[in-house]
Amino acid sequence: MPQPVIDAMVEHIELEATMGGYEAADLKAKEIAGFYDSAATLINGKATNIAFTSSATNSFARALSCIPFYEGDSILLANEDYISNQIAFLSLQKKFKLKILRAASLSTGGVDVADMKRLMDIHHPKLVSLTHVPSNTGLVQPVEEVGGLCEERDLYYLVDACQSAGQIPIDVEKIRCDFLSATLRKFLRGPRGAGFLYVSDKIINQKLAPLFIDMRGADWITADTYAPRMDARRFEDWEFPYALVLGSKAAIDYANIIGLENIKERNAFLCKQIRKGILEISGLRLLDTGLEQSSIITVEIPGQRAQDVLHNLRKKNINTSVGHKHFALIDFEAKHVDWALRISPHYYNTEEEVGILIQSLRKYEV
Amino acid sequence: MPQPVIDAMVEHIELEATMGGYEAADLKAKEIAGFYDSAATLINGKATNIAFTSSATNSFARALSCIPFYEGDSILLANEDYISNQIAFLSLQKKFKLKILRAASLSTGGVDVADMKRLMDIHHPKLVSLTHVPSNTGLVQPVEEVGGLCEERDLYYLVDACQSAGQIPIDVEKIRCDFLSATLRKFLRGPRGAGFLYVSDKIINQKLAPLFIDMRGADWITADTYAPRMDARRFEDWEFPYALVLGSKAAIDYANIIGLENIKERNAFLCKQIRKGILEISGLRLLDTGLEQSSIITVEIPGQRAQDVLHNLRKKNINTSVGHKHFALIDFEAKHVDWALRISPHYYNTEEEVGILIQSLRKYEV
Repeated sequence: MPQPVIDAMVEHIELEATMGGYEAADLKAKEIAGFYDSAATLINGKATNIAFTSSATNSFARALSCIPFYEGDSILLANEDYISNQIAFLSLQKKFKLKILRAASLSTGGVDVADMKRLMDIHHPKLVSLTHVPSNTGLVQPVEEVGGLCEERDLYYLVDACQSAGQIPIDVEKIRCDFLSATLRKFLRGPRGAGFLYVSDKIINQKLAPLFIDMRGADWITADTYAPRMDARRFEDWEFPYALVLGSKAAIDYANIIGLENIKERNAFLCKQIRKGILEISGLRLLDTGLEQSSIITVEIPGQRAQDVLHNLRKKNINTSVGHKHFALIDFEAKHVDWALRISPHYYNTEEEVGILIQSLRKYEV
Repeated sequence: MPQPVIDAMVEHIELEATMGGYEAADLKAKEIAGFYDSAATLINGKATNIAFTSSATNSFARALSCIPFYEGDSILLANEDYISNQIAFLSLQKKFKLKILRAASLSTGGVDVADMKRLMDIHHPKLVSLTHVPSNTGLVQPVEEVGGLCEERDLYYLVDACQSAGQIPIDVEKIRCDFLSATLRKFLRGPRGAGFLYVSDKIINQKLAPLFIDMRGADWITADTYAPRMDARRFEDWEFPYALVLGSKAAIDYANIIGLENIKERNAFLCKQIRKGILEISGLRLLDTGLEQSSIITVEIPGQRAQDVLHNLRKKNINTSVGHKHFALIDFEAKHVDWALRISPHYYNTEEEVGILIQSLRKYEV
């Protein structure tokens, strides 16, 4: 987290302790409202299309909960979609007797858009969902192309931007999605436990409401009726961690000021160096596929234990993470790997740091 | 928030910024695990019965989402139940075509347990729900008595302890509930945006899982199957605001050390003085009913505007809040009030502060 993010949070926590929670929120009302403007700027939407949530997965669940599913409806997704989304779909499948359709992957990696189109035309799915940048393989899915197909067929379209927000430019006008879920803590460098959900005007105007709507999202009209509010905050809970909202605003502003095109370019430069370095180490297998690659680099390190590699790198102040097969079942089975090291450089990393990383990975040369 | 709560949060935020989010969580694994022990101690449960959530309402929604509702099922509740719970029930009613049954209130205030029993025997509701301490009227509902009736009939029983946690002793063994939802930010003096859910062993063993279960709550087994974990953390999201978890632990420990019996006794002493003071001011109407009263004091101030009263008191460093009719529709219509001032003293308040409050309210004498 950059310093302005920490400052925003700590300042608000101390304000709450000094003057009270409601009172501090009232005092910071303008800055809190600014969160919605900042998030809207990030994705080229309007402030009224933004809801604050506790994570990308939580955003995703809230979006799913408003779709009017009926027995026999289908959901169309990709093999590379994020594990928690896959589990949520399976839970919905069980509850509402839905069909889950997974489009084929291209041999070069990423979803086969032609197969998505084919499945759309056969099944007319109630919902199409795509993870913009999958966690466990370094590719970028063609969310705009799929969005065009969904719009032509008037299908609900949900994009998980958990790993893309803060990493590459996102434009909901071009993606033409109904929902876009994002987290703050990853490439946006914001607080843990914070996320947002973009909701299109179409969904707002159709009055689709989350299943567990509360007094933030709706007014209680008579004992047996309520009316959902007419913006995306319909998808929020009433209770809020305002310190995290303010930290989130600071993080998004920080990214917006640097500029997503600049971040994308810098990350591509660093990633190219890292991928090149890995390819030069015999025995290591770079697992990234796809026509367009992201700042998530996945690599197989044969003959090693995941925790050992992670801890060895951590000792050198290199933070990486590990994807296990059960996090990305379909993708990892296709690649025949049990685990992969995940390296996620970001714009603030230096070329010197890239050199130290590659040097450290040489230890695993075979 | 007491200082240890602030310290726990600020320390962790700074740790995350210095070493990374995953790395900080690993370093504080023992303290994070301690949250579950502390919450369990507070309510006389086991650590495996506790899930961390973002609020009481969010806990409540997660609990509701696991109940296997079918068309025609009914939910039994009380007139005094919290607005967000009422809205959630109405949303479920619409989605699953449920019946909502509200037990009558006693003329002295609070739910009529005999009427609850009568409705249980006629309708055999799928779920019984009760708000332990309603927000907008100063009473304590007989949750233990109702729990006995639910247990005898094997009905799912959900208790909202949002306002009771940290205010009075809670014992889930005596309440015999399947779920208990709580917030941290109110009488527990913890962070905003934090809550917990107690889930009984019965629910865990029946493998009831929240509708939007994710990779925290379940393992992905094959492409089309998942297995829920066998403790209450099945109800959690994977992503977590660890700073708030640690702040929550500190807040619960703080309350546990003071002791809930001591807090209850001290609060009863302060509330008695305040209620007595209000009764001596002509024109003001104390709205609290019920056989047992809570530390929430509600008072009608005729001829005044809510915001004016709130701001006048705030200028004197007296933090109160306002309940509007649409927050407590059924209860406030029965009492014929449009709004009520909500005064919530807590053990740290002094008798001198009580005196200043009463003095300030005298301004509204008519």
